[in-house]
Amino acid sequence: MRRQLPSVEQFVQGIRASDRVLLGQAITLVESAREEHQILAREIIGRLLSPSHTSLTSLRIAVTGAPGVGKSTFIEALGMHLVAQGKRLAVLAIDPSSTVSGGSILGDKTRMEQLSASEKAFIRPSPSGDSLGGVARKTREAIVLVEAAGFDTVIIETVGVGQSEIAAQRMTDVFLLLLLPGAGDELQGIKRGIVEMADFLVVNKTDGDRVKLANQARGHYLNATHLLPPKSSGWQPRVMACSALENMGITEIWEAILEFHSHTLANGFLQENRRQQALYWLEDSIEAGLKTMFYKHPAVKEKLAEVQAEVLAGRMSPTEAAARVLAIVDW
Amino acid sequence: MRRQLPSVEQFVQGIRASDRVLLGQAITLVESAREEHQILAREIIGRLLSPSHTSLTSLRIAVTGAPGVGKSTFIEALGMHLVAQGKRLAVLAIDPSSTVSGGSILGDKTRMEQLSASEKAFIRPSPSGDSLGGVARKTREAIVLVEAAGFDTVIIETVGVGQSEIAAQRMTDVFLLLLLPGAGDELQGIKRGIVEMADFLVVNKTDGDRVKLANQARGHYLNATHLLPPKSSGWQPRVMACSALENMGITEIWEAILEFHSHTLANGFLQENRRQQALYWLEDSIEAGLKTMFYKHPAVKEKLAEVQAEVLAGRMSPTEAAARVLAIVDW
Repeated sequence: MRRQLPSVEQFVQGIRASDRVLLGQAITLVESAREEHQILAREIIGRLLSPSHTSLTSLRIAVTGAPGVGKSTFIEALGMHLVAQGKRLAVLAIDPSSTVSGGSILGDKTRMEQLSASEKAFIRPSPSGDSLGGVARKTREAIVLVEAAGFDTVIIETVGVGQSEIAAQRMTDVFLLLLLPGAGDELQGIKRGIVEMADFLVVNKTDGDRVKLANQARGHYLNATHLLPPKSSGWQPRVMACSALENMGITEIWEAILEFHSHTLANGFLQENRRQQALYWLEDSIEAGLKTMFYKHPAVKEKLAEVQAEVLAGRMSPTEAAARVLAIVDW
Repeated sequence: MRRQLPSVEQFVQGIRASDRVLLGQAITLVESAREEHQILAREIIGRLLSPSHTSLTSLRIAVTGAPGVGKSTFIEALGMHLVAQGKRLAVLAIDPSSTVSGGSILGDKTRMEQLSASEKAFIRPSPSGDSLGGVARKTREAIVLVEAAGFDTVIIETVGVGQSEIAAQRMTDVFLLLLLPGAGDELQGIKRGIVEMADFLVVNKTDGDRVKLANQARGHYLNATHLLPPKSSGWQPRVMACSALENMGITEIWEAILEFHSHTLANGFLQENRRQQALYWLEDSIEAGLKTMFYKHPAVKEKLAEVQAEVLAGRMSPTEAAARVLAIVDW
């Protein structure tokens, strides 16, 4: 990423040929704050994103759960199973807290040691950013790049405790929530809204002393899902158990995910969902672009500096100041 | 809220005279999606928000913690203590998940039975909204209204598991995190970034069989806070214990909060923090207003409908479509 960046053409050809170095560099461009990088990234994505963005050659899976539930171990176990089946897997993440805390889920690749060693897997830590929107947008663009590079299965990891899951749901086909044996969802910091989004509730760590607790938890969630309103996919959320550590239950989970995939392809939900997601990302792109354009406007810059000084001095309210800046571009 | 709405003048006078009905109606206007309500709300807030928005007559406290930690019981216990001291307390909330799940923290006023019966307390459930930004903006405007109505202490409750805490921090003077005895922060779904924001870490439910566990938890968090980087307020985060249920430790917590208040007033942090918050809310108001203006533009509406159809049909990528809509207003 020094002086000599490859050309758009080189990026496009390289990514299509599954060149991991160029793929990694292109994602770095997507994540960069520098405008020249952003422009280059947009060109590359524009070339690689065919208009038929609703093409169904890939399966996108959101995996979430509270910290400590074993997401990395689970993704590693599922990922090794997929790779053994001949799949090519990309693992991306959305973790806006990485900005606040300096840490990041997936920041440490060694947490998925076997998987990161595989030629058929591509693991990328969460982009950083000053807002969830920015972080999510970068991850969504990374999906375009990894799919163009031939990765047919994409896992989006989130930390399972808030708004990131909504962003993840808006870019995936299936939503898998990992749970700890024994703890009620309240104790796990899992919000009810997130349980409702799940197509799969998987009780992990069903091993050793925890088997009995895990079975209780499964029963609990089974009851809970029966009380939920029916999903528009027509899919009854599946409650399953596994031990990622002992590689138990992983095959069954993958088969169930494939069943979900066939089900939603057959009834058209997957296609319709992707269309709605495209509309959502259209809106998101418009709003991000609008802000960029606005703040670059010279008269806006000038007026903004002026009212900021007034606000800092306590002479003007933020609401009044905003109205004055907006008056500049009122159409 | 039928046909005959009070005039701006009636609202302003009524709120200044602490009329609870008019205060409640004004907050409903803030929360309303109808444009005429929004305009009226903006006028009322413009009148009530003095330019010296950095006035320091109120204390704003963020209270957060994972579901199940006992936030309502804690706020009720602290609130009753405040009311007994002659304070006037408003309790507001930020819970964007109330949109997804239909439920809402504070949705059920009966959870704070004593406090809601007090004439010196005003409790309002979280506004709903389709984005965290929208929900937070409404809560921030409600702060202006309750303070104008003479409430000198404002508690902002959040659910403790994600981005809402960042929004809460951006509108409060002090940040209090409630914790369960025994559980490590990982198990509680509390992200490291949130622990770092806390001025007070309070282990609740220090009662009955849990006293030993609670003391262990206190020790754990005490160690943890010593490892954190120093805060720009110059305040060393305080780890405390209480039992909201048994009304134990509440007085000490309130005294410590007052100590924090004096400390940050004396070193100027509180004033500087409010100035920075005003800048943040200026930016937020600009961006919300910009979107509203943009989508109302007739040519934008027309082009947007056109490209949405293309995107839905799979003939255009969201990125390309966004560029075409933005081209309309390119300055």
